[in-house]
Amino acid sequence: MAILLSVTGFDPSRWWQALHDAAPERLIVLDPADAGSEPITHAVVWKQPPGLLATLPQLEAVFSLGAGVDHILADRQLPDVPIVRIVADDLKERMSEYVVWRVLDHLRRGRSYRQQQTQKIWHERVQPAAREITVGIMGLGVLGLDAAEKLRVMGFRVAGWGRSEKTVAGVATFAGEQGLGPFLAETDILVVLLPLTADTRGVIGAGLLSRLKRDTPLGGPVLINAGRGALQDEAAILAALDEGRLMEASLDVFTVEPLPPQSRLWSHPKVFVTPHAAALSDPDALAPLIMRQIAAQERGEPLGNVVDRSAGY
Amino acid sequence: MAILLSVTGFDPSRWWQALHDAAPERLIVLDPADAGSEPITHAVVWKQPPGLLATLPQLEAVFSLGAGVDHILADRQLPDVPIVRIVADDLKERMSEYVVWRVLDHLRRGRSYRQQQTQKIWHERVQPAAREITVGIMGLGVLGLDAAEKLRVMGFRVAGWGRSEKTVAGVATFAGEQGLGPFLAETDILVVLLPLTADTRGVIGAGLLSRLKRDTPLGGPVLINAGRGALQDEAAILAALDEGRLMEASLDVFTVEPLPPQSRLWSHPKVFVTPHAAALSDPDALAPLIMRQIAAQERGEPLGNVVDRSAGY
Repeated sequence: MAILLSVTGFDPSRWWQALHDAAPERLIVLDPADAGSEPITHAVVWKQPPGLLATLPQLEAVFSLGAGVDHILADRQLPDVPIVRIVADDLKERMSEYVVWRVLDHLRRGRSYRQQQTQKIWHERVQPAAREITVGIMGLGVLGLDAAEKLRVMGFRVAGWGRSEKTVAGVATFAGEQGLGPFLAETDILVVLLPLTADTRGVIGAGLLSRLKRDTPLGGPVLINAGRGALQDEAAILAALDEGRLMEASLDVFTVEPLPPQSRLWSHPKVFVTPHAAALSDPDALAPLIMRQIAAQERGEPLGNVVDRSAGY
Repeated sequence: MAILLSVTGFDPSRWWQALHDAAPERLIVLDPADAGSEPITHAVVWKQPPGLLATLPQLEAVFSLGAGVDHILADRQLPDVPIVRIVADDLKERMSEYVVWRVLDHLRRGRSYRQQQTQKIWHERVQPAAREITVGIMGLGVLGLDAAEKLRVMGFRVAGWGRSEKTVAGVATFAGEQGLGPFLAETDILVVLLPLTADTRGVIGAGLLSRLKRDTPLGGPVLINAGRGALQDEAAILAALDEGRLMEASLDVFTVEPLPPQSRLWSHPKVFVTPHAAALSDPDALAPLIMRQIAAQERGEPLGNVVDRSAGY
């Protein structure tokens, strides 16, 4: 029996090593041909080549290297085996670091103070307190709930929006299309942590941006997207920034990655760009979780964090 | 009876209005002469002119507009009445916003990502997790304890140092001169929230900086000072940055404020400057606390948050 590691867009060697270190007795191959006569029973993938998994008749499960699985589901010849996504404290904690960091940088006027420093200007800005700001989180999964709790501890009011009704202590929750308007009307800083599905593709577009609250204590609404690039319409975001309907944005994900040099997002003075680094999947922290799931499945135990293909996450 | 409002360095009108709004029946004057025949029983001050308070024979208490009182105690003719400092949730929460913001910006390599963005470089940096970093807080008063708790929730390990022994749940505490070395040896990011006293003046100097841990998960130690400018030796900080003994610094306070244009701190690429804005005293939030204390004293109740003059805070 062998495990296939198949990734696109980056060097798989750190992942191979971490998977190997977590279970040295396993045969882990980067190409199905290298398995020889051993059947490939599990695949660990990030954006696998379309059609590749369909060539593995003994496949029992597919594991994503991250929280998202849209890169797996995009394969139209995906075999009918369980798809498992990573749910790990490490990933969750790093994402919350990013979210709280970006929310505080917008709250505390990091951009303005950095500009003032280059001009040696000593000037104290009007500064609302966290408790005067509502952070609205789209996506109340494991990541959204952890970020919500940490923002609450920092003093922010928190609202949350999800596909279906959910009750979260201390968070004003809204659901579905009819809940979106009231949610956006309360939101001063919008944090997007949605999965990418047919329903959410392009959701951060002109329509949503036009419904954001204009008159916020910071002087305008702020957008933070750490979900998926395809959730956003980048032309609409740039237009909203240029027209002053959006005050600032922090974007970690983009429709095309790496973000092409010609994108105006790179140089827009109100945009902060990070290279899809909000919640780096640390191989050393995550590989043991994957190997433990494989061993559990072999013992006949149920897999955790299996994706609902109809929902898309 | 009248209340004197005496400040140096900024326009007192917002404070006058807030004090007036909190107790409209009170006579509040900016100059003792304006009180006419009314005795001045209370003074609300920020860096009052030396000797001014000694001219008020009926004075019963002096209130600072902020958490610090060194600006009051600097007056060599200070009358022997209680000095009261502000202890307010508003001040504490804003200070913790600043501390967590700066700690996260250093952890998440804000400086590097901003530089990369100007050059359109898509490159993910090595990123330790919060749980791999120890934030060492000097000063375990109300502000230090609140920051410690919020940093713990964000996942950081927290160490604390104070003048005297203190036990804080979840925080490794150190005290006195003999505790300073072990404290600094554990600290990856140093946060200074000390009061300014004869003992602490210049404490952030060459000696302390040379004892900081060199080999941190971020590549070097980080300094954050949101206490008082006179705690720091700015030439020593610049030397440590230039020599690579200090990786980065966030400074909100300076030995001379406003920071003079000729200071190299303004333009040093590893320094982030804010204009003493970490925990703005919001008059609307704080004036009612002062007026309530004055009324309580008049009813014969004890004052809260009275300064110990021998300790200096």
